[in-house]
This record gives sequence, structure tokens and C-alpha cells, in this order.
Amino acid sequence: MKKSLVLLALASSFACADEGMWMPQQLPQIAPQLSAAGLELDANNLTKLTEFPAAAIVSLGGCSAAFVSPKGLVATNHHCVYNSIAHNSTADNNLLANGFLAATLADEVPAAPGSRIFVTKAVDNVTAQIIDANTAKLSGKKRLDAIEANQKALVAQCEQDAGHRCTVAAYYGSLEYYLIKQLEIKDVRLVHAPAEGVGKFGGDTDNWMWPRHTGDYSFLRAYVSADGKSADYSVDNVPYQAEFHLTLAKQGVQEGDFVMALGYPGRTNRHRLPSEVLETFEWSYPALVQNVTEIVDIINQHTADNTDAQLKYASRLAGLNNVLKNRKGMLESFAGSDFLARKTAEHQALSQWVNSNSSNKKAYAKDLTAIEKLLQQQQQQARAEYLLNNATPRLLATARSLYRLAQEGTKPDAERKAGFQQRDIPRYQAFVAGMERNFAAHVEQALDLHQLSKYAALPKKQRNADFDKALGIKEGMSTAQLSTLLQTLYSNTTLLDLAQRQALVAASPAVFAASEDPFVKAAVALYASDLKREAEREELNGKIQQAYASYMRAKMAFMQAQGQAVYPDANSTLRLTYGHVKGRAHGNEDGNAWAPFTTLRGITAKATGEGEFNAPQSQLDAIKAGNYGPYKVDSLKSVPVNFLATLDITGGNSGSAVLNSKAELVGLAFDGTLDSIISDWDFNPDNTRAIMVDHRFMLWQMQLDGAQNLLTEMGVN
Amino acid sequence: MKKSLVLLALASSFACADEGMWMPQQLPQIAPQLSAAGLELDANNLTKLTEFPAAAIVSLGGCSAAFVSPKGLVATNHHCVYNSIAHNSTADNNLLANGFLAATLADEVPAAPGSRIFVTKAVDNVTAQIIDANTAKLSGKKRLDAIEANQKALVAQCEQDAGHRCTVAAYYGSLEYYLIKQLEIKDVRLVHAPAEGVGKFGGDTDNWMWPRHTGDYSFLRAYVSADGKSADYSVDNVPYQAEFHLTLAKQGVQEGDFVMALGYPGRTNRHRLPSEVLETFEWSYPALVQNVTEIVDIINQHTADNTDAQLKYASRLAGLNNVLKNRKGMLESFAGSDFLARKTAEHQALSQWVNSNSSNKKAYAKDLTAIEKLLQQQQQQARAEYLLNNATPRLLATARSLYRLAQEGTKPDAERKAGFQQRDIPRYQAFVAGMERNFAAHVEQALDLHQLSKYAALPKKQRNADFDKALGIKEGMSTAQLSTLLQTLYSNTTLLDLAQRQALVAASPAVFAASEDPFVKAAVALYASDLKREAEREELNGKIQQAYASYMRAKMAFMQAQGQAVYPDANSTLRLTYGHVKGRAHGNEDGNAWAPFTTLRGITAKATGEGEFNAPQSQLDAIKAGNYGPYKVDSLKSVPVNFLATLDITGGNSGSAVLNSKAELVGLAFDGTLDSIISDWDFNPDNTRAIMVDHRFMLWQMQLDGAQNLLTEMGVN
Repeated sequence: MKKSLVLLALASSFACADEGMWMPQQLPQIAPQLSAAGLELDANNLTKLTEFPAAAIVSLGGCSAAFVSPKGLVATNHHCVYNSIAHNSTADNNLLANGFLAATLADEVPAAPGSRIFVTKAVDNVTAQIIDANTAKLSGKKRLDAIEANQKALVAQCEQDAGHRCTVAAYYGSLEYYLIKQLEIKDVRLVHAPAEGVGKFGGDTDNWMWPRHTGDYSFLRAYVSADGKSADYSVDNVPYQAEFHLTLAKQGVQEGDFVMALGYPGRTNRHRLPSEVLETFEWSYPALVQNVTEIVDIINQHTADNTDAQLKYASRLAGLNNVLKNRKGMLESFAGSDFLARKTAEHQALSQWVNSNSSNKKAYAKDLTAIEKLLQQQQQQARAEYLLNNATPRLLATARSLYRLAQEGTKPDAERKAGFQQRDIPRYQAFVAGMERNFAAHVEQALDLHQLSKYAALPKKQRNADFDKALGIKEGMSTAQLSTLLQTLYSNTTLLDLAQRQALVAASPAVFAASEDPFVKAAVALYASDLKREAEREELNGKIQQAYASYMRAKMAFMQAQGQAVYPDANSTLRLTYGHVKGRAHGNEDGNAWAPFTTLRGITAKATGEGEFNAPQSQLDAIKAGNYGPYKVDSLKSVPVNFLATLDITGGNSGSAVLNSKAELVGLAFDGTLDSIISDWDFNPDNTRAIMVDHRFMLWQMQLDGAQNLLTEMGVN
Repeated sequence: MKKSLVLLALASSFACADEGMWMPQQLPQIAPQLSAAGLELDANNLTKLTEFPAAAIVSLGGCSAAFVSPKGLVATNHHCVYNSIAHNSTADNNLLANGFLAATLADEVPAAPGSRIFVTKAVDNVTAQIIDANTAKLSGKKRLDAIEANQKALVAQCEQDAGHRCTVAAYYGSLEYYLIKQLEIKDVRLVHAPAEGVGKFGGDTDNWMWPRHTGDYSFLRAYVSADGKSADYSVDNVPYQAEFHLTLAKQGVQEGDFVMALGYPGRTNRHRLPSEVLETFEWSYPALVQNVTEIVDIINQHTADNTDAQLKYASRLAGLNNVLKNRKGMLESFAGSDFLARKTAEHQALSQWVNSNSSNKKAYAKDLTAIEKLLQQQQQQARAEYLLNNATPRLLATARSLYRLAQEGTKPDAERKAGFQQRDIPRYQAFVAGMERNFAAHVEQALDLHQLSKYAALPKKQRNADFDKALGIKEGMSTAQLSTLLQTLYSNTTLLDLAQRQALVAASPAVFAASEDPFVKAAVALYASDLKREAEREELNGKIQQAYASYMRAKMAFMQAQGQAVYPDANSTLRLTYGHVKGRAHGNEDGNAWAPFTTLRGITAKATGEGEFNAPQSQLDAIKAGNYGPYKVDSLKSVPVNFLATLDITGGNSGSAVLNSKAELVGLAFDGTLDSIISDWDFNPDNTRAIMVDHRFMLWQMQLDGAQNLLTEMGVN
């Protein structure tokens, strides 16, 4: 599930056993459950985001990680630092294949450009400042604009403390807002990664699968300036002195043990309305599967005999295939479930409760009706613009973004649209530079032709006249004519050149107006129309924000009236999930089940000496010789490799520290199982299992790999 | 495991949880364990072999079965009546393929010739009569002869009650003897068998495997004369009025439920000495695997383009392959276990106990030493004669048996050697007739050449001079010369002719003396030498009998001193084993486990429409339509097909009734799993599981097959 766990946050449902991505502040609400489940610490002492253990948990932006020494050593998944290993690899020194171990601090190498470690410093509920008295009275686009202005003001104020990144995150369907202040560590260095045959053992074949045997762990280190501030890479930087760090458990876990994971889950949809579920599973996901399947075919076709193109699209293909596997898995689970019926019944119960007395009715009834109508409008719009959006060439999308950046650049920074402010410019620079490595004109042209052919076949009134005019699409164009049109566009564009693209980043609007580039001209021509469509969307979204928050307030009141604690849907903020080490009653075929642990035996059984199952010979030899050291578990007659637990995780949780009942590190979460994915919408306690790399395997392999320095630093031995 | 469960009984070990093949008479000894395990009946009421439930359990001679109606209806495994289904099949009416259902009593058809149902009528401890005062004083061959004479006398007296078959069975390494009197029902009729695609679903591929989806059940009916006596087939016969029968449980079992199986396990070796374990696993089994592998290759080679020969050897090949799978499975389990070390430690503890005080020492010490030496002699002899025995052509072995029968026939019946009495003659007739269907000269000749070549290559003093002379084997013969020798023998023998063989059954010795048949001549020539070798063996066996019984007496006293009940090794007599419905922590691959139940879903998943996985279309349609009737289990979302339980069974238990805590039928045992086989020697509670066909699946399939008459007769609905 890599991609999914790395990240792919509006709004959740009625909590089952082991369900729940709890905000640490909420733990006192579920203290009795945590204690009954086996937590040996007082839940009331785990609430502070700036104290142990939460303060030891960091975000890599898309992945989760944790400090495991006072000297800024960070443990996360191998797949979370894959790019950094690749970045430091050369033909002569293939770190991906061979692994990497810095013997001393001086041997640690910079992680891939853009790598960050975010250490949370403060979290404050700012709902009253975001939805202040004035904003509360507004509706539609005006409401959305006010919310955005309030967010930007809070962020700007917060980021005056240099070296920090601040964000306002919406919770409970934008009913609540929190301002999160994080130290942004920019000097991130790669410390240790096992060989790919360990860290990525099983590859795509085993992705989302059980039984699993992946040593998906690696280590980074956070560096700061000598005075402890965030700083760009410098040889003068020093390891960050982490105030709190995790210690590794002396004893590993066994079946039935309490475990909890702390990390940054990206997005779940458990509080969604029945109509949203229906639209997603009956239309959005099937349409996406169809479209992505076509895209994958075209990319494969047009990169077949072209190594350069293959390299450029390898990462995107992997991502698309991952999305396909994910969405197909969800659709399959949905088809075999009564999810929609339950969701509908739950929502009916909510409606009845709302309408059961006059005060509830007065508070919620209107919005509960309104939200349905608003969501229907939104869905109709999405369907109407589906083919148009698919048909937008990447070069046109790029030109549009850059022109918008130019237009927003003419305003004072605070007034610029979010995403187009001064703080966002480095992202655009990285983006236009990145196209050198992920864009091949002939592949894009083939994709554009495919999508434009579908769009152009629509009846005129279902098409967008401005878009047609800007690109030169005419009624009744054949595929051959569209192909010629695209050929002309691609022949005349300058955007295939890096310098030309770079020149447009944060340029003035006049530069765009004077451009002869057909995509830039189209972007300029579409600007007014784009703004108008955006304003229409925002008008709708503003109404949705208000009504959805009201629906969530009703739902929370309803659940709380039934004595249920309510956790917000995942939104890339720190959460705690707890559960138990547990196999599963039904496995991959009828009559089989899942054991909670895999062992070294499975590595030997799967090893092929090549490709995805290329276990290192030294590892196989050690297994054969039975060199288990102190990490052998007698009942398993081997060292545990991966284990299953009833933890509620999703994309973004990759690298999450998994702790025992005393909050000691016992593993790192790195995946879920294919039929767990539906839990992003509908938590299924029977199926849902998180997959962890067992810390005993990590230590065993590290010893084998000679990483004694890190074992010592972590206080292992 | 078919063959193995159908049967393949000298002496068992320290009992673990769920280990134990208990004689019903022993149940009071383990009443607290039975009650703790979940038995709801009083164990003290289950001890009588002639009362419920034991009296409802019958033997088919090699298989187990049970009365399930007061009208003699018997439930057993499909594979236990396979020959009877085949016997009634024709090209036009392929009962194997299509299944068989007698709509009325008149439609029931005779089972295969020789089919028997044995109903136990009396069981008495006759140890004092077998080892009477006189016998107790004897040693060696004289002791063995006296035991045999006492046995024959008891059997002859018992069988004076016409229609009964009596046997004396040895228990606890011949420390105890029981006389078992059984009504021998000879008119056995086939009542119902499902299609092979149900009853043998999975075939050899799934044999000994889990997950399993085999509907391994069928029904016979016992018929007797109008006055209730055993009788050969007659239209005037009537269904046997069974005094006791099992009723089918209204509720099926679920995970963790108490279950017990009653049946006739053939042979186990749990009380063996460490030296016997060593010899078996380090020499006998490896040698057997090697030899059988060669035999299988030769048979395959010489039947390759010969349908007739293929048919003749199909059954033997299946048997040999089954033995190979069994023995290889055992050797693999042995290699991965500490069995020998444990066995040795246990035996040392016994020795220490024996030598710990003077009375024990006086009672056992001498025999405990003696048995080791005697067994060593026996092992040396077996090794010495191994190639000789393998090299004996089947025709020579046949001639030898028939000549011995002729020689014994000159004595009064009571004095004849056991196995060569009047009561045994029908067996010889069946044997010589059967060679028409299982003997092809060219195949045997090839096998003989292979084995003789190995034997003839031995140094002269390791060969048997009498055998060499009788067959014409000379020092230094090449394979080509041996081939010519065999060609001459086969060209001149008359034993390939059925009438010639039949003429020799119970003929006078003079007939043999006058024969010019080379194999008959060799048999006559070898007679004196054969007798002498037999006498030597018997001298040794007589000593072993006495010493082994003494070792067992010591072992039992030792175990009982520790408060342990001791069950005897299996010896084809009625036993009860109890345990629980339970999956397994480790499955077919690392990280997998076994669920306790399979379901109809697995049938659909495995069905290929042909061969071993040819599920009937009507069944697949019913599954697809979700027509589960009352047999659906909600937690499984389907009908359970097979289930696993911690029952201690072995070959001979096929068809064993499996009962719930109230002694109601919930399934039929039909197999174990490959890594359970080692339990014949060393019970492994982690691995050992019996596989049952769930009675809910049987009833579901019977309803689908229109067997309403039988469901009504069994009181189901």
C-alpha cells in the first residue's frame, strides 16, 4: 500500500472495537477503553502534543516517523526514504541495491532535495478565529474567502517565528480548526537503509498482501544550526537535540498484546453522507478505474521501446497502478458489503433524532436537508466537467497555474490566493524543474489525444466553449484532426524547455500576455473563464462548508448523546490508534487464516535470488545457520519479521511508531491489507489489519548489517 | 490419507492434551479430563462396548462406520465404499461419476464381494488364558507356539456361534489380550453415494491436505436373514435391526466445541523404544522410500503404452504413491523434530525409575536390558534379509504360501499354523483369483530383474545359498544373465493361468512335489529352509514377546506412578479419541494459519469442471444461488464443508463417527494432514488435526441430491 500509506480531509462514522484515529487531546475520553485494552500508562498523561510520547513523533510530510535517540536519529520506513537512497546512488555505488550505513556522523549524506522533518511545537484550537462573528454571518464564496483570509493571517503570524511551518487544519467536516506550528528541519540526512532486498523485499507483488516479509525500516537524522535553529544544509550544522525520543522495547510483542500507533494519517471518509458514498462507489471510483486503466495502457504502449521514457514514467506508472489496486480493492470490498444500507440506516437514525424534538430540529433540520441538495449540485458539476478535466493537457495545466501565480503576484502577499503566495514559489520552481524527469512529449501527446477524443465527441452543449476556442477544438473533429491539432500545439510550444518554464515562474502577467506559446496563450485566454468557474465552485463550497459543519455538529451531538466518543476523520494531523496483535480468521483462500507473525522461514521460502525477492545472501546464510541471537521467539522457532495488529491506519501512517503498553517501540507500521482499504470509508474490524515490521527483525538485520553504532545509540546493547 | 486411514499392532508414549486412543473401558480413568473438555454425558456410562454409543460403531474391516437408523443404515466414508460403487458401475451407468441413490430398499444393490460389517457383541480380557501358567514359564518359539495355540482355541470356541468372527487382539506390546466377538454381516448393500465430484472432490491433489472440500460420505445397509442371523446375500434377507444407532445433531459444531470420534484405528507406535525409532527413521523408512520410488518408476515405464497393464497396476500404484507421500511426510517431520532426543530422555527416566529401588529393579531391570539386545538382533536380521526379501518374485511368494497351506492342511485344523487354517482358505481363493486383475507378467519380470540385480550383486556370504540354488542364481551373474534366467522362469511357469493357481489352493503336498513349474519347484525346494528361518524368527519373537510385555508393564507402572492414564497403541480395535474443533496457528506457508472450517465458497474456487475438481453443476448452481437452507452458518456466511479437530486418529479411522458433547453425530472423520502422520509415532499437539466432513454439508448435499428418504429415515426432517 506504500503510496496509500504515504498519502493520497474533509470529514468519519460509528466507532467499532479498535476503530478510531484519536487526537491525543481526546484520550481522556477513551481512557477506560485504553486501560481495558491493556495500556499500562495513564491515558491522561499522553495528551500533550509537546510531551512524551507525541513529541517524539514527527512528520516527513506524507510519511510518519519518530525520534529514537536524543541526537535526532529518526526511524521511519524504507519506502519513505526511498528517494533519498536513490538520490545518493550511483552506478558504481548502488545504495538502493546494497543498502547504506553511515559509520559516523560525518558519513551521513544529505537526503533528497526537499526532504523535511516536521517537529510539532504547538497545536491550538483556532475555530473561533477562523469562524469569527463576522465570518459566521457570511455564506457562499464570501464565507470561503473570509475563512481563507483568517487562515492566512494566522499562518503568517505564526510563521514569523523563522524556521517554522504553520498550517490550519480543518476537523469534523470543517466544524473545527486547529493551528499547528512545526519546526521545519531542512537539513535531513540519510543514516542507514538496508539493502532493497530487505527493505523492499516482496516489492509490488507483496504490496498490500499478507503473509509479508519486508524489512521496511530506515534511519534519518535531523540537523540544525549550532544554535538549534532550522537551517539549510551546512557542514557546520549539528544533530538536533530531540527533547523526547522513543526507547526500544526489551521484549517484543506477542499475539494478543496491546499496541498503539502514533502517526499522521492522511485522509479518511468515515463521516460521509450516504449520498457521497453512493456517488463515490457507483460513479467516481468506477470512472477513475476505467480512465486510469486506459492511461496505464497508453503509457506502457508509448514507452515500450524507450528506456528514457520508461524511466520518466516509472514513478507515475507505479503510482497509477497503486491507485488501481487500491480502488479496485475498495470496489470489490464495497460490492460484497452492506455498507451503503448501514450508512443509510445510520443517517436515518440521525435524521429521526434531529426531528424528534424542537430544539434539535431548530438547530439542525434545515442544514441536514440543505447539505443533500448542495452535495447533489457538486456531484452534477463534477460529472459535467469530468471529461473536460481529463482532457486538459499537462502543459496547459502548467501554463494556467503559472499564469495564476503571475496574476496573484501583483497583489500584496496576504491577499493572494492560498497556494499562490510567496511561500509557495519554491514549490513551483521544483515543479517545473521536475518535468525534466517526468515528462516526455510523445507520451503526453498520446494521452492528450486519447482524452481529447472522448471530450470532443460530446455534444456541443456539454462541452466548454472557452476551452474549445482556446485550444482550437471544433465541432465534429475526427481523431485524425485532433491528432494534427495536438501536433501543431506541441511543435510550437516552448514549455518543453526547462529555461522557458523557469522564466515563467513568478514572472509578470505581461510576460504571459506577450507569449506566442500556444499553451500560454490558451491559459491567458481562459483566465477570465477559469476565475468565473472557480468563483462558482467557491460559492457552492462556501455553502457546503457551513451546512456540512452543521451536519457534523448534529452527528456529534447525536453520537455523544449515545455516550460515544467521536474522532475526526484523518486530515494529516497526529493521531493515535490502539488495538492488539492479532491474526485473522479468514485468509487468502477458503479454510485458511492469517497467523499474526511471519518469520525468517518465509524469507527463505520466498527468496528467488533476483528481482522483488532478492534477499541478500548474508541474510539467507544467517537464517540457514540459525543465527537468531536474542531475537528468536521460541513459539515461532525463528525471528518474527512482520506482524499484524488491529490498528486503524491509512495513507500517511507509513513509518508510524508502534508502541507497546508501556509506550516502548515494538515496530513500524508500513502497510495494510487489500481488503482493509475499504476501512477508509467503512471500518471493518474483521478484515482490517495493519502490517508492522517487528523491531526484533529490524535489530536482528541491523546487527547482521553491522549497524552496531546505531544499536548503541538507541541503547539496545 | 485414505489408504493410511483405511489401514496399513504391537505397542504408545506420554500422553499430551487431546492425545489418546482410549479403550471405552478406560474412560472412567479420564472422566475428569473428558468433563473438563466439555463432554456433557457421564463418561462412566460410555464404557460398555455393547451399549450406546459404542454399540452403534461398526467396523468394515479397514474402515470405521456407524449405524444411523434402527434399520441397519450405516454411514461411512465415500472412499471406504469406493470399490462397491465401482463394482456396480457400468459404462452406461457410471455410478462413480454420477453417484447412486436407492429410492427404496428394493433398489439397494450388493456391495463389492467380500464386503463385511462387523458388529461387536462381546469383548473379554483373556490375558490369563493366553499367557496361562504353563505358557508363562516358556521362552522363545515354544512360548510363541503356546500363545498361538491358546489363541486358536479361544477363537475356535467363540466362532462356534455361527455367523460370528472372533479375534484375539494384543494390547500394550502383547502385555494384555482381549477376545473380540463380532457379528459378521455378509449381506452388505450400497444405499447412497454422492457423485465422485463430491465424494472424492480434490482427489489425490488434496489428499492429506488442508484446506479441504471433500464430501467423503456414503451409506451402506446391513442385511440379515429373517431370523436376524448373519447370512449370505438373499432377496429374502431383511435390514438388520440395530439395537443402538446414532442420531444426527440438530446444531452443528463451532470452533472450540468438544468432539469425540469412535472408530477402529489400525496401528500406532507410540510406546516404541528409542532404538526402534532410530532404526525406523534412520534406516527402514529411508530404504523403503528409495525402493518404492524405484518400483513406481519401473511400473510406470512398463505400463506406459499399455492400457490393460495400467488398469492392472492402477490400484497398486495409488497405494505405493500413498505410502511414499506418507513416509516422506514422516521423514520430513522427523527431521525437523527433537523426537528421538525426547524419546531417549523419557526412556532414561524410565530406566532410572526402574533402578531406583530394589523391587522395581527385580521386576523389570533384566527385561529392560534384554529387550534392547533382542531388538538389535531383530534389526540386524531385517537388514540382512532386506534385499533377499525384496528380490523374491511374487510368483515364488505365491507358490510358497500355497505349498505351506498344503503342508499345514495335512494336520488337524487346530494344529495348523495361524493363517493356514480352514477358515483362511477363502482368502487364498480370493487371492489367486485377484491376480487376474493385478498381475502382468512383463511388469513383474521387470520388477524382479531390478530387485534380483541388487541382490545378486551382494557378496556370496551375504546371499542365501538355498534361495540362489532354488532359482538358479550364480555368483557373478550379470543383469543380462539374470534377465535370461527370469525369461526362462516366466516362460515355463504355469502360475500365470488362473485354473492352475486355483488347482493349487488347498491341494495336497504331492501335487506340488509332482509339479514341473519352476516357481513351485523352488517353493518345494525352499520349504525346509523356510521353516528353519521361520523357527529362528519365532524363537527370537517369543523372547521379544516376553521382554516387550515386561518393558510395557514397567512403563505403565512408571506412568501410573505419575498419575498418568495409559492408553494402548492402536491395534484395529474400537477406540475413543476426544478433542476440540480447532484450526491451527501455522498453515501451509509462513504467516498463514488454518481456519477450522472450509465452506462452499472453496468448492466454487477449486472447481475446474473436470478431473479431481469436477464439482457437479447442480452443486455449483446451488452455491451460486445461495441456496443454503437451514445449513448456513452466519459467521461463515456459507455452509461448512469440512472441519478440523484435535482428534487422535490414524489409518483405520476412516469413516469414524464424530460426536458432539451429547454424543450426537456432527461429522465423519476421513483424513489427517500430512504433518500429522508423524503422530503415529510421536503425537504432536501443535500440528495434528483430523479432517471431518461436516454433517451439515452432508445433509445439504443429500437434500440437493434428492435423498429425502434417507434424511427422513435418519430423523433429520
